[in-house]
Amino acid sequence: MKKVVLVPDSFKGTMSSSKVCEIMEKKVKEYFPCCEVISIPVADGGEGSVDCFLRAVGGEKIRVKVKNPYFEDMEAFYGLIDQGKTAVIEMAACAGLPLVENRKNPSKTTTYGVGQLIMDAAGRGVKKIIVGLGGSCTNDGGCGAAAAVGIKFINRNGNEFIPTGGTLHEIDSIDMSGKAEILKGIEIVTMCDIDNPMYGPNGAAYVFAPQKGADRDMVMHLDRGIYHLSEVIKKDLNKDLADIPGTGAAGAMGAGMMAFFDSTLQMGIETVLDTVRFDSLIHDADMIFTGEGKLDSQSLRGKVVMGVAKRASVANVPVIVVAGGADLDIDEIYNFGVTSVFTINRLPEDFEISRSKSVENLNFTMDNILRLMVRLKLNATEKMSKKLQPL
Amino acid sequence: MKKVVLVPDSFKGTMSSSKVCEIMEKKVKEYFPCCEVISIPVADGGEGSVDCFLRAVGGEKIRVKVKNPYFEDMEAFYGLIDQGKTAVIEMAACAGLPLVENRKNPSKTTTYGVGQLIMDAAGRGVKKIIVGLGGSCTNDGGCGAAAAVGIKFINRNGNEFIPTGGTLHEIDSIDMSGKAEILKGIEIVTMCDIDNPMYGPNGAAYVFAPQKGADRDMVMHLDRGIYHLSEVIKKDLNKDLADIPGTGAAGAMGAGMMAFFDSTLQMGIETVLDTVRFDSLIHDADMIFTGEGKLDSQSLRGKVVMGVAKRASVANVPVIVVAGGADLDIDEIYNFGVTSVFTINRLPEDFEISRSKSVENLNFTMDNILRLMVRLKLNATEKMSKKLQPL
Repeated sequence: MKKVVLVPDSFKGTMSSSKVCEIMEKKVKEYFPCCEVISIPVADGGEGSVDCFLRAVGGEKIRVKVKNPYFEDMEAFYGLIDQGKTAVIEMAACAGLPLVENRKNPSKTTTYGVGQLIMDAAGRGVKKIIVGLGGSCTNDGGCGAAAAVGIKFINRNGNEFIPTGGTLHEIDSIDMSGKAEILKGIEIVTMCDIDNPMYGPNGAAYVFAPQKGADRDMVMHLDRGIYHLSEVIKKDLNKDLADIPGTGAAGAMGAGMMAFFDSTLQMGIETVLDTVRFDSLIHDADMIFTGEGKLDSQSLRGKVVMGVAKRASVANVPVIVVAGGADLDIDEIYNFGVTSVFTINRLPEDFEISRSKSVENLNFTMDNILRLMVRLKLNATEKMSKKLQPL
Repeated sequence: MKKVVLVPDSFKGTMSSSKVCEIMEKKVKEYFPCCEVISIPVADGGEGSVDCFLRAVGGEKIRVKVKNPYFEDMEAFYGLIDQGKTAVIEMAACAGLPLVENRKNPSKTTTYGVGQLIMDAAGRGVKKIIVGLGGSCTNDGGCGAAAAVGIKFINRNGNEFIPTGGTLHEIDSIDMSGKAEILKGIEIVTMCDIDNPMYGPNGAAYVFAPQKGADRDMVMHLDRGIYHLSEVIKKDLNKDLADIPGTGAAGAMGAGMMAFFDSTLQMGIETVLDTVRFDSLIHDADMIFTGEGKLDSQSLRGKVVMGVAKRASVANVPVIVVAGGADLDIDEIYNFGVTSVFTINRLPEDFEISRSKSVENLNFTMDNILRLMVRLKLNATEKMSKKLQPL
């Protein structure tokens, strides 16, 4: 083999996508030392996404002083890639749950810092900003971020304020006129892998606020706040977002990105593959390895494996999926371009036991796949096909 | 691929080797419909061994009226293979534990029927008899089988009798003079995969008699009986067998086969591979699939996978091992000719759960290995290498 592309998702609960790449790359190099190996740890928009992008395509990590979820100063960061033309922001960098460990309260926390990161990137002249949702401690519908770029929220008394989850219901009108000019012409893409609408039983508050520290009463209050925000957005911005899948992501930050930043919501994997120019990367690859913690019917719906397989299929490159587990109802993935699926469970053990063995089990599985590939004389085949070519 | 050889062990507790072959063969044919598939379900000498041999090489199943473990009439069987030149006997056919379901008693049961099967085969002019040990209900040191071919056991009163486990201590002398002439010149090979000596804490009685129905007192009595038999064999037959590994197999039938039938004890896998003429079968094979329930340090010591790998290595044919589980300390097997190991655990589940999914899990694993082989264009490689050959 001359070129292998590694593009795994994380194995939820055991290994980050970077760790999976590291193991896969080491093994490929062991058996094919001259092979070019391209590692693309897949980011889902949550914590670690910036590092994934930087690892995949290289670039610079920019550190910026912004507001944390409680409007206090902190140092956050984003990634500058593509010769400075694209910024990658993960909202978790300044609105992440780990930042409020002991004072979780989604009625009070803000995404203000995210808007500051966007402004900083815009100030550097980027043409595109990717914003990753996920792992947030907020429920402010992105109003904090909007305020940071000059959008004004006015209450019934005509006073401007920065809404948080608990004060969304006080918004009487939204004034977009002050929005920073510098953002014009910048494409903003939001990575969002979940389908939740803004409010209601499947909305941001009911589904995600409890893990951010909300009790039953607060959840109801937050949900009413998001509902109110959606109505004001409809009235003042003429956008009806409530039922769009993903608008409920990250405390309705999905809705805020659409409403205030004219952003599209995109599956994380599509964003990653576009950003790394996957199609041109793989056109001369001999093999693609991908994988995830568990292949199930969810995997068929836009997740990493399917996203990779569809593009690999077009390029006619084989795809090996290495997974922590595989459900029975996944046969469809072969139709979409997956060559083979190998699960890493070396022994019949419950996940409670095997989770601590993920690294050795992945090593074992990669080792045996590669041993087979070596034995089937991939190299010999290549040599032969070269000899056979008229040129 | 033009030729594949399947030679799996059973997956203990879940699938017979025949079942494993059936699944593997179906999958190979699905992806390589023109491929010649040779199935060799590996026999270990125990119940089902005759059928394994017949399935692997073809032949005739001979049914014979013999004595059951309680000297009652029954119909047993053996296999006639190799154009009638070789007989394959499994002692379980007439001395097996399932035959005495409700009256287990290793002090009273006999291997007499096994001797009758040997006599019947000899009467048909075979040149070689393979006797599989395993699954027995007896502890008679093979004295019953010996009596059936004319060997006489004399007690202190000078009377002839047929010893069973409980009366071995009554043997005063052994008279070989009446042994059937017809057995002369017939090679007798005994399949035996265990290492136990005749008596003592690791001997036939202590280790195996409890599962045959012996209580503590009976175990001690049986052990003393086997010890006594070993002393008489030493005195009258001039053979010191007690510590030879395997003589304690199947109620010391291993010792009896050596003492009374001049048999060698041989690993089951070696017997199978010799009998099917494995070396000549595989010389033009593209791939060998083997496997077993669990690959562990035991697997390194003469078990199926190693036996297969060693011969495949000489013939330079790749070997894929499909296993229910694989311990960490098996790396040595690659040095002995194993190409790759794939375990079938589709999900991280305890054996108590996954054991009922063995068939679907093996199907899944074979399916994905074969998908990979198809995709790596094995066929194309073959075509190319043909073109490249000067001829």
